[in-house]
Amino acid sequence: MNQGLPRSLLAEALGTALLVATVVGSGIMAETLAGGSLGLALLANTIATGAILFVLITVLGPVSGAHFNPVVSCVFALRGQLAPSYALAFAATQLLGGIVGTLLAHAMFDQPLLQFSKTGRAGLSQWLSEGVATFALVFTILGTIKSRPAAVPAAVALVIVAGYWFTASTSFANPAVTVARALTDTFSGIAPRDALPFIVAQFIGGIAALVLCKALFDLDETASQ
Amino acid sequence: MNQGLPRSLLAEALGTALLVATVVGSGIMAETLAGGSLGLALLANTIATGAILFVLITVLGPVSGAHFNPVVSCVFALRGQLAPSYALAFAATQLLGGIVGTLLAHAMFDQPLLQFSKTGRAGLSQWLSEGVATFALVFTILGTIKSRPAAVPAAVALVIVAGYWFTASTSFANPAVTVARALTDTFSGIAPRDALPFIVAQFIGGIAALVLCKALFDLDETASQ
Amino acid sequence: MNQGLPRSLLAEALGTALLVATVVGSGIMAETLAGGSLGLALLANTIATGAILFVLITVLGPVSGAHFNPVVSCVFALRGQLAPSYALAFAATQLLGGIVGTLLAHAMFDQPLLQFSKTGRAGLSQWLSEGVATFALVFTILGTIKSRPAAVPAAVALVIVAGYWFTASTSFANPAVTVARALTDTFSGIAPRDALPFIVAQFIGGIAALVLCKALFDLDETASQ
Amino acid sequence: MNQGLPRSLLAEALGTALLVATVVGSGIMAETLAGGSLGLALLANTIATGAILFVLITVLGPVSGAHFNPVVSCVFALRGQLAPSYALAFAATQLLGGIVGTLLAHAMFDQPLLQFSKTGRAGLSQWLSEGVATFALVFTILGTIKSRPAAVPAAVALVIVAGYWFTASTSFANPAVTVARALTDTFSGIAPRDALPFIVAQFIGGIAALVLCKALFDLDETASQ
Repeated sequence: MNQGLPRSLLAEALGTALLVATVVGSGIMAETLAGGSLGLALLANTIATGAILFVLITVLGPVSGAHFNPVVSCVFALRGQLAPSYALAFAATQLLGGIVGTLLAHAMFDQPLLQFSKTGRAGLSQWLSEGVATFALVFTILGTIKSRPAAVPAAVALVIVAGYWFTASTSFANPAVTVARALTDTFSGIAPRDALPFIVAQFIGGIAALVLCKALFDLDETASQ
Repeated sequence: MNQGLPRSLLAEALGTALLVATVVGSGIMAETLAGGSLGLALLANTIATGAILFVLITVLGPVSGAHFNPVVSCVFALRGQLAPSYALAFAATQLLGGIVGTLLAHAMFDQPLLQFSKTGRAGLSQWLSEGVATFALVFTILGTIKSRPAAVPAAVALVIVAGYWFTASTSFANPAVTVARALTDTFSGIAPRDALPFIVAQFIGGIAALVLCKALFDLDETASQ
Repeated sequence: MNQGLPRSLLAEALGTALLVATVVGSGIMAETLAGGSLGLALLANTIATGAILFVLITVLGPVSGAHFNPVVSCVFALRGQLAPSYALAFAATQLLGGIVGTLLAHAMFDQPLLQFSKTGRAGLSQWLSEGVATFALVFTILGTIKSRPAAVPAAVALVIVAGYWFTASTSFANPAVTVARALTDTFSGIAPRDALPFIVAQFIGGIAALVLCKALFDLDETASQ
Repeated sequence: MNQGLPRSLLAEALGTALLVATVVGSGIMAETLAGGSLGLALLANTIATGAILFVLITVLGPVSGAHFNPVVSCVFALRGQLAPSYALAFAATQLLGGIVGTLLAHAMFDQPLLQFSKTGRAGLSQWLSEGVATFALVFTILGTIKSRPAAVPAAVALVIVAGYWFTASTSFANPAVTVARALTDTFSGIAPRDALPFIVAQFIGGIAALVLCKALFDLDETASQ
């Protein structure tokens, strides 16, 4: 599946950039047009994010695995399916790609390129939300690869669609996206001081999902589709 | 398909918990953000519920059948595809999982963990709605398993999406979910005193669907796809 | 595909009833909850209708072809794939099923069972809309059966989703549904005096699509998928 | 795949006409019903457009490739998969079909047939948006043909759904659609004087995607699925 590291890193950079550009850009568009209805704004944000996830995973999955997410790369490293050094390279690339995505969204919406969010997102319920959201994401990825690999793009898109609404934090579930969203003071932003606890909760949730999936599925056998 | 009872029960518990956490959690989020527009709140609730159903059935279907619903387990027992004692264990697990789901949603949204709904949902039209909703759900499950098993996750998700709107009760269609929703005094709640008639109507609707499906399909042959 | 006429007629009756119950019921629910926002009401109506169409065609397609629509049965009769007497029986059953669907929606929403719509829908632009809507529907059915039969449920659902918005009439595109909607004085109704011109336009649009599809596809060969 | 030029041109004309009729018509319907909520109007416009794209690409893909877009035909010509003279014929047909689509939408909504938009859409951020949108579209087409051809209709529909929200221009991404939308002074219009820079940006974005896809995928081998 992996056609050389440079090509994988290009796929991870591009995918994470387009994912973040969609999350941030659609947040700006939605807030602008929703005329104060936060519900409508989040609904548009949700639909755009789910749609681009389906696309990016469909197109880039065969190139790099379409992680776009350091927790996911970490989980595959813990399963022995990605060399630790590759996982680190993936994570660094995802961080960089995510930041480029924020800058791209700002450029498309005629915003100052460099911003820092002032939106506070903290507290136990927020951190629990991020843990649950990332648990659900990793559970979905590992479970769908096992049960029906062709459904991974739809399943990942839809678990994030649900997560936007069933968690109090709107389901960041991704350290690279969290850092990138700290750099925008728009609808989808998170104050930089609140990013680290989110990231810690995300890794805890993701690793918990790996443990549970080992109990629930025979992870070492892959589905024949 | 069934890889041991403990694993099946873990799948049913986890699946029902995440389903209920999504129904209850997205209801809280949607009502908070919708600014008084019940239509917008139900729309967000609908999309989140449909999305997580697709995910959970895709991932957990091969482990336990992904019932998450005592009526469904009962129907499979009546068809001789699940031992009665297993069906009872499934139902008890679903009830427990559902209650955990409500608690999880409350924790994520910083709500008192223990609540009882004050939302009355009673009357003939409500009960008819639950009967029709569960009829449609079981009809969809049995029919899609027969016609195109790979489409079960999408079909079940979409019959519930439709049910949120075409029934007056918003289509609970599930006794475990009904009990769990009696324990939240938020958007998706149902007063505990109104739960039992809902559950009776659900069993009647589900068994009626089984009878009809026997007339409509050759249920004993399975599709080759 | 056709497993005996009685079973086909049961499928057509049930499918048309559930389709109409969804169109009418979700219209009532949506209008009630939307608080005056016709756009939000139509959006919910759209999503519910598209969702149930996917379900009903997936489940009942192998039994009766899942027409639920006299224009569609007429087109298959003109193509020689359905005996004319069967097409008439289908159409009568669809009409009856549709009326039952309206009554069912009224019962679920605690409405007077027997109603006549007062919503005027007339004029050249409305009739043109119905012609175009039915053209698009039949074109989608014939084209998708040819190009990718497994996609018929999704394609038919989505052409109606689009049709709710791109036509001025919200795309009835179905004589049985039109008659059934004349019998409800709620969101989705049409005044009985306006039903006939809709039905004429629908047949013209559907037959025009058949003519075009014969030019565009090799209709007599079926896809291998 | 190509069954004779006349049939291909008929498919391109019909597809582009129905696509534009949906974009323009659903814009009129959505703006009329949304009661001033631009967010709700764009959401309805998005869903209708995504829905019809899935349908048209599913049905017409096997006939003409379902380009409906001069940038896409140009990209296939540059890859040597479409003769330059055919690409020109495709583009002219798409332009004509698009204009017919606008007229059809106007007729269905009882509007003056001939209009010129007064909606200004200009500036660096708009042009960047169109470049990014068309980049994403062509990247999706080439990547999905490579990774999973059966997913092309869904992927193209969803990249446009996302593009309506993550770009500041709502993702025209298509010169034929841009010209057609210059001829309607409704929700989806663009002032004629602003069309040319959009089209230039679209070609730049599309060709940039072709260059990137050559680096990212082995474009000359096709997927076996």
